[in-house]
Amino acid sequence: MTGIVSVAMTRTAAVPVDDRSSPALGDRARIRVGIVGATGYVGGELIRLLERHPRARIVALHGRERDREPIASTHAHLGGTGHVIDARMPTDVDVIFLALPHGTSSTLVPDLVSHGTTVMDMGPDFRLRDPADYPRWYGFEHPAPELLASAVYGLPELHRAQLSGLAGRFPAIVGSPGCYPTATLLALAPLAREGLIDDLVIDAKSGVSGAGREPKPDMTYSEVNESVKAYGIGGHRHVAEIEQELAGMDATASARPVDFLPHLVPMTRGILSACHVRPRREVTQAELDALYRDAYADEPFVEVVGTPPSTKQVLGSNHCRVHVTADPRTGRVLVIGVIDNLVKGAAGQGVQAMNLCFDLPEEAGLEQLPLAP
Amino acid sequence: MTGIVSVAMTRTAAVPVDDRSSPALGDRARIRVGIVGATGYVGGELIRLLERHPRARIVALHGRERDREPIASTHAHLGGTGHVIDARMPTDVDVIFLALPHGTSSTLVPDLVSHGTTVMDMGPDFRLRDPADYPRWYGFEHPAPELLASAVYGLPELHRAQLSGLAGRFPAIVGSPGCYPTATLLALAPLAREGLIDDLVIDAKSGVSGAGREPKPDMTYSEVNESVKAYGIGGHRHVAEIEQELAGMDATASARPVDFLPHLVPMTRGILSACHVRPRREVTQAELDALYRDAYADEPFVEVVGTPPSTKQVLGSNHCRVHVTADPRTGRVLVIGVIDNLVKGAAGQGVQAMNLCFDLPEEAGLEQLPLAP
Amino acid sequence: MTGIVSVAMTRTAAVPVDDRSSPALGDRARIRVGIVGATGYVGGELIRLLERHPRARIVALHGRERDREPIASTHAHLGGTGHVIDARMPTDVDVIFLALPHGTSSTLVPDLVSHGTTVMDMGPDFRLRDPADYPRWYGFEHPAPELLASAVYGLPELHRAQLSGLAGRFPAIVGSPGCYPTATLLALAPLAREGLIDDLVIDAKSGVSGAGREPKPDMTYSEVNESVKAYGIGGHRHVAEIEQELAGMDATASARPVDFLPHLVPMTRGILSACHVRPRREVTQAELDALYRDAYADEPFVEVVGTPPSTKQVLGSNHCRVHVTADPRTGRVLVIGVIDNLVKGAAGQGVQAMNLCFDLPEEAGLEQLPLAP
Amino acid sequence: MTGIVSVAMTRTAAVPVDDRSSPALGDRARIRVGIVGATGYVGGELIRLLERHPRARIVALHGRERDREPIASTHAHLGGTGHVIDARMPTDVDVIFLALPHGTSSTLVPDLVSHGTTVMDMGPDFRLRDPADYPRWYGFEHPAPELLASAVYGLPELHRAQLSGLAGRFPAIVGSPGCYPTATLLALAPLAREGLIDDLVIDAKSGVSGAGREPKPDMTYSEVNESVKAYGIGGHRHVAEIEQELAGMDATASARPVDFLPHLVPMTRGILSACHVRPRREVTQAELDALYRDAYADEPFVEVVGTPPSTKQVLGSNHCRVHVTADPRTGRVLVIGVIDNLVKGAAGQGVQAMNLCFDLPEEAGLEQLPLAP
Repeated sequence: MTGIVSVAMTRTAAVPVDDRSSPALGDRARIRVGIVGATGYVGGELIRLLERHPRARIVALHGRERDREPIASTHAHLGGTGHVIDARMPTDVDVIFLALPHGTSSTLVPDLVSHGTTVMDMGPDFRLRDPADYPRWYGFEHPAPELLASAVYGLPELHRAQLSGLAGRFPAIVGSPGCYPTATLLALAPLAREGLIDDLVIDAKSGVSGAGREPKPDMTYSEVNESVKAYGIGGHRHVAEIEQELAGMDATASARPVDFLPHLVPMTRGILSACHVRPRREVTQAELDALYRDAYADEPFVEVVGTPPSTKQVLGSNHCRVHVTADPRTGRVLVIGVIDNLVKGAAGQGVQAMNLCFDLPEEAGLEQLPLAP
Repeated sequence: MTGIVSVAMTRTAAVPVDDRSSPALGDRARIRVGIVGATGYVGGELIRLLERHPRARIVALHGRERDREPIASTHAHLGGTGHVIDARMPTDVDVIFLALPHGTSSTLVPDLVSHGTTVMDMGPDFRLRDPADYPRWYGFEHPAPELLASAVYGLPELHRAQLSGLAGRFPAIVGSPGCYPTATLLALAPLAREGLIDDLVIDAKSGVSGAGREPKPDMTYSEVNESVKAYGIGGHRHVAEIEQELAGMDATASARPVDFLPHLVPMTRGILSACHVRPRREVTQAELDALYRDAYADEPFVEVVGTPPSTKQVLGSNHCRVHVTADPRTGRVLVIGVIDNLVKGAAGQGVQAMNLCFDLPEEAGLEQLPLAP
Repeated sequence: MTGIVSVAMTRTAAVPVDDRSSPALGDRARIRVGIVGATGYVGGELIRLLERHPRARIVALHGRERDREPIASTHAHLGGTGHVIDARMPTDVDVIFLALPHGTSSTLVPDLVSHGTTVMDMGPDFRLRDPADYPRWYGFEHPAPELLASAVYGLPELHRAQLSGLAGRFPAIVGSPGCYPTATLLALAPLAREGLIDDLVIDAKSGVSGAGREPKPDMTYSEVNESVKAYGIGGHRHVAEIEQELAGMDATASARPVDFLPHLVPMTRGILSACHVRPRREVTQAELDALYRDAYADEPFVEVVGTPPSTKQVLGSNHCRVHVTADPRTGRVLVIGVIDNLVKGAAGQGVQAMNLCFDLPEEAGLEQLPLAP
Repeated sequence: MTGIVSVAMTRTAAVPVDDRSSPALGDRARIRVGIVGATGYVGGELIRLLERHPRARIVALHGRERDREPIASTHAHLGGTGHVIDARMPTDVDVIFLALPHGTSSTLVPDLVSHGTTVMDMGPDFRLRDPADYPRWYGFEHPAPELLASAVYGLPELHRAQLSGLAGRFPAIVGSPGCYPTATLLALAPLAREGLIDDLVIDAKSGVSGAGREPKPDMTYSEVNESVKAYGIGGHRHVAEIEQELAGMDATASARPVDFLPHLVPMTRGILSACHVRPRREVTQAELDALYRDAYADEPFVEVVGTPPSTKQVLGSNHCRVHVTADPRTGRVLVIGVIDNLVKGAAGQGVQAMNLCFDLPEEAGLEQLPLAP
C-alpha cells in the first residue's frame, strides 16, 4: 500500500581538494578505490569515509548477489551518494579494500597484487606472519603463505615506516588489524617497548557492530539490550595478533600466553580494552606519564588522557584514547584504550594506512571529530 | 589515587580551504565565530562543526562560571581541539551563536547587532514574530519587540531568500528553528503551500538530548532506558512556531489549532515527526510524489525517500528525510520527517543559515555523511 | 575450548497454593496446561507466569524441531525450571495455549476443541468474527469459519461475561488480543461506549520484542539502537481488531476507518498508544475524569493515572495505565494507554482470560508488580 | 494545561499466605517491616518484593522531606500499592531495612537494636569488621565500633548459619553486601575455600542503577548510552568487602591485595564480574566442575551454568549464575558471576537474609523468575 516515491538523490559537494600529484600517485589527482564486500558494516564505513576523502575517489563497490542494486538497499544512510553495487570484481583501481570473511581474501590477493593493485585487507588473512597460525586460530590452510612475510600489519603507530610509500613496492599488501588488537596494542605499546610487561590480563568490552551485519539469534535488539556477557572464553582469535605484535616489541613478552577476555555490551559501536599489567619492575606514575607522553606526542590519532576515557569520546572518529595508571596498592599498572571499533578499529585505520601507502597526508579523510553525546 | 596524566593535545589539521573573499565577508578569509553557551549540547555541536568549517574560525567560546577551563572539562570528546572557555562575552567576531535558555538572548541581542555582529540565536527569542506569543508560550515579555519583525526564521528551505546575504544588512538576526518544528515543517511545507492541509495531527518522537544537558531526575539512564512517554500534553511551546510558519505558507491553515504531541524515546539523538493530514481534497500518491519531488529536487539537505525512514539514517548529519503516503483506506495523507535534533534540528541548521548569511556555499562545513549503524 | 559444566538445576519452590476445587475445574486441584510454540517470546512469558501460577501446572511444552531439548536451550533464563521441549502436540491437558504464526492455529483448533480442551489462541486466527477479514488482512482463507462466531475476543475488560466459565462450554476458544489493540482499546473503551468518538488518529510506539524472536536484518541491535521508525503504513493488521471492537461498542464509530500508525522504538518491551480523538461533542476534563474513573474503578489491571504514564511503569506486569486529557485549545481529547506488550499485550492477558474461563481468581499468577527502574 | 485525573488505586490481592507462627516471630502472622530510605532504587525494590512477600507486611516507609506523599510521587510504578511516605522513623516493627548513604545508618542502629528491632542495613556501615576500614575506605570514623564484631555479613551462601534465627538474638544486625562483592564472592568462594587463589584480577561491569537515583551529570541517558567506561581506578570501596571475605575463607589469600576494576555499561540493571585467577596449582576442568557443583548443589539462588551467562538471564530475580573455566593455554581459571544488582545485589539479598533471620522459608517472596527478553 505504501506509495513508492523516487528518491531525489542529493549529492552534496565534496570538500575542495588539492590536486597536486604525489610520487606514489603518479599523475593522477585522486587515487581510484575499489571496495569488495561493500555491503557489510566495514564496507559502509569505508564508503562514508572515502566518499569525503579529498584525495581518493570510489570507483567500484562490489557486493555478491546484489548486482546493480543502489547502495540505499543495503546502506540506507548512504543513499544520497548515488552509488550502485556491482557484482564484478573491481578493475582499474589503484587500491582495493577487501572486507570479507576470513579465508576469502587470501584466495584473491595473489592475482590482485600481480596487477600492481595495492591491497588493504580488512580481514585477518594477512595479519599473521606465521602460516601455522591460520590452521590453529582460523581453521584453514593459508593459500598464499609466501606473501605473509611481506604483508605489513597495518597499525600505523607501530609500522609507519613499512607502510609509507608501500603502494610503489611489490607486493603491496596491508593486513589491517582487528578491532580488539588495535585498542589493546595502542594501550600496551609503550610498556612493551620498554620490556615492562610481566603478567598480563586483558579484559575487553565491545559494541555489537563488531559481530558484523549478519542477523544472528543472539544479536537481536531484544537479546542484547540490558545485558552483558563474556564470549570467546579460552581463546578469541584476536589473541594471535596481540601475541605476535607484543612479541615484536618485546621478545621476552611472548614467554607467557596472553589472557584475553572479550565481552559484548549493549551498544552499537566502541571498544574498551582494560589491560591489567604486572610490571617486571616497580614503576611510578611519573615514569608512566613520561613514557606515554613521549610515545604518543606526535601521533595524530592517539591521545593520552588524564581521566578514564569512555568509548563515546571517540565515537565516529579515528581517535584512540589511552589512560595509564600505576596502582601502588596492588603493584599493578592499568592501561585503558578506547576506540570506535568500526573506525580506528577497521575502516578508518584502513584509510589511515592507505594514506601512508600513497604518501598522502596521514589524516586525509579522517578529520571528523567525535560525535557526542 | 588516579594518576593524572597531562593530555597530549592533538590538533588534527583542518581540510584545505578556498580563501577567496566573498562580498559579505569583505577581505577576510574566514569568518570569525563566537559561541555563547558553548558548554551545552548545542554548543558542543557548533564547535564540532565549525572547527572543521573551511570558511569559519572559532575565536571565542563563552561559558558562565567556567572561565579559563579547557573545553575537555565540559566536552571531553572535543579535548583535542585545545579550545578554552572564556567567561567574557566574545567581541571582534563576525557572527555570534547564542545557545542560551529562553528569555536570555533577547536581552543581549540589541547590543550585539548595534555593533554589526550577525546573530544566530539558537533559542526561541527571535523565532516568533508576534510579541504577544512570548508571554503566552514562554512566560516572559520580550525586551526587544521592535527587532522581531526583521528577525529571520532560520529554516533555509522556507526562507532562503531572506537569509542570503543577511550579514551585510541591519539588523542581522536569525531565529534558528526548534528541533520539532524543523522536522515537522519540512514534512508539511509542500502540502501547506498548496493549501492542502485541513485537519492535522502531529505525533512526534525525540531522543533525550533535546532536553539539554542539565541532569534532571527523569533524564537519568535508569529512568529513560526501556521506556517511552508522552509529554507537553495540551500545548508544547513548539506549537507556536509550527502554527506561525504553516500560516505563513497557507493563511487558511491557521484556522484550526495544531494538535502536536511529543514523546521521549530511549535514544540520544533523532526526531521523527509523523504528520497525519486530512487533506482539503482527495489527492493521489502520484500527485504527492510529484509535489514533493518538485519541492525538494534542488535542496541539498532534504531527501524525499520511498520507504519509511529511520532517524538513524540521518544521525550526525544535517540531512532531513521525508516520506509521504496517501492512504486510500482512510483518505488521509501521512508525512514523516526525520532529522538529527542536534544537527539539522539545531547546530547544523544554524551553520547552514550562517553560510547563507555570508554568501558561503550552503553546504560548507556540513558535508559529513550520516553515521550508521 | 570452553569447559562444559553441567548445569545444576535449582527448582525454586512455587508459592503456596489453595487447592480447593472450582466448579469449572471439577475435582482437580490445578489445571493442566500445555503450551504450543513454547520457544518464542510469548511462549517464554507463558512459562514464566504459569510456572508460578498457584492454580495451574505446566504439563507440556511443544516446540517444533526441538524435541527433548531442555528449555535452557531456547530460554536460558528459565533453565532453572527444568522443563523440556517436546515435539508432540500436548494431550491430556485442560487448556492449551497456542503461540503460533497466523494461519497455523486455525488448522489445529477444531480437533482440540472436539476433545474438550479449552483453547487460548495467542495469534490472530480467532480474533476476528468476519471470515472475510482473514483473506483481506492476513492473506489466508480461514479453515474453520464456523468457529469464529463462538470464539471470544479475550480482552477481559470488554468481554468478561463471555469469558467467565467458558471452559465448561463448547467450543471454548479465546482469541487473545494483539498487543496494539489491547493498549488502544483500553484507552478508548470509555469514550467508545458513550459514542463520543468522531475522528480518530492512533499513533502507537512499540518495543522490538513485539516483532518476535526470529532474527531479521532490521531487528539486530546495531540497526535498532538509536533509531525510531514508522512501519505498517497504510494498514497494519491490528487495524482489523481495533475497528471490530470499537464498532462493537459504538456502531456509529465504524463509519470512519481507523488511522493507525505503529512505530518501532529502541526498547525491548512496552507499547504506548496515543489516541487523538475529535469528540462528537464538547467534553470537559471533569466529565472525562468521571467517565474513566467509573469505567475502571473495579478493574484489577487498569489504572487511570493523572500524569502521562511511561511504559516502564508497567514493565513485566499485567497492568495497563490510561491517561485522558481534554485539550480546550484544539477541542480534541487525547488518551494514552501503556502496557507491557508481552504481558498485558500477550501472555499475561492470556492467563487472565484463562483464569476467567476456569472461574479462578482473575489475578491468580499475575500478582507481580512492575519492575522499575 | 494537563488535566489532573485522580489515580484509581488498584490494590491487587497478595498471594495466599500461610499464617502459622514461627519461633522467631512469636504469635504474629506476618513480620512487620519498616523501610528507611524508601524513595531510592533499593527502597523501591524492597517495596516491590515485600509487598508480595507471603510472611511480611510493610507497615512504614520512611523518606526524608517527603512526609505524607503517596509512593507514586517517587516510585510511579508502585502507585497501585497505595503506600504513603512518612518522615518519621518507623516504630513498632519487627525488622527495619536501612537504605541510606554510608555513615548514616551507623548513627541510627544502636538505638534501633536496643529496642529489639532486627536491622537489615543495605549500606556499608556494618559490612566491615575492622573499624579502621571505615576511615580508610569511607572517610568516616565508625560511631558504634563495638557493634561491628556481632554484625553479620549478609551473604547467605557464606554465612547462613550466623543469619539463621538472628532475629531472636541481640544485637540483630545484618550488613547486607554490596552488589559487586556479591557477584564476585559467589564466583570465587569455591576456589577460595580450597585455597586455590594465587593471583587475582577482578574486572567487573555494572548497569547504571547501581549508582543510585540521584541525577548526576554523567548519569543522564545522553551521556551513558553508547558508552562504556571504567571508574574507581586505584581502589573502589567494594575492595574492602571482597578482601575481608576472601580472607575469611582463605587466610593466605589476603597476602596479595585484590586488583578490582569496575566499569559502567549502558544498561539499567545487572552486574557481571569476571574473575581472572592464577591458581596455586594446576586444576582441571573436571575438578572445577565437581568443586562448583558440590558447592552450590543445594543453594536455591545460585546456578552453575555450562555456557557463559548474560546478565539478562537473571534480570529481576534473586538468582546468581556462575560459570567456571580452566584455560590450559594460559594456566588461568576464569570465573564469571552475574546477578541483578538491585535484587541479589541489594534488596532481594536483604529479603533472603531477613527470611533466615526469622526462620522463614529462604525463598519466601523471592520466587519471581527472571524477566527476559
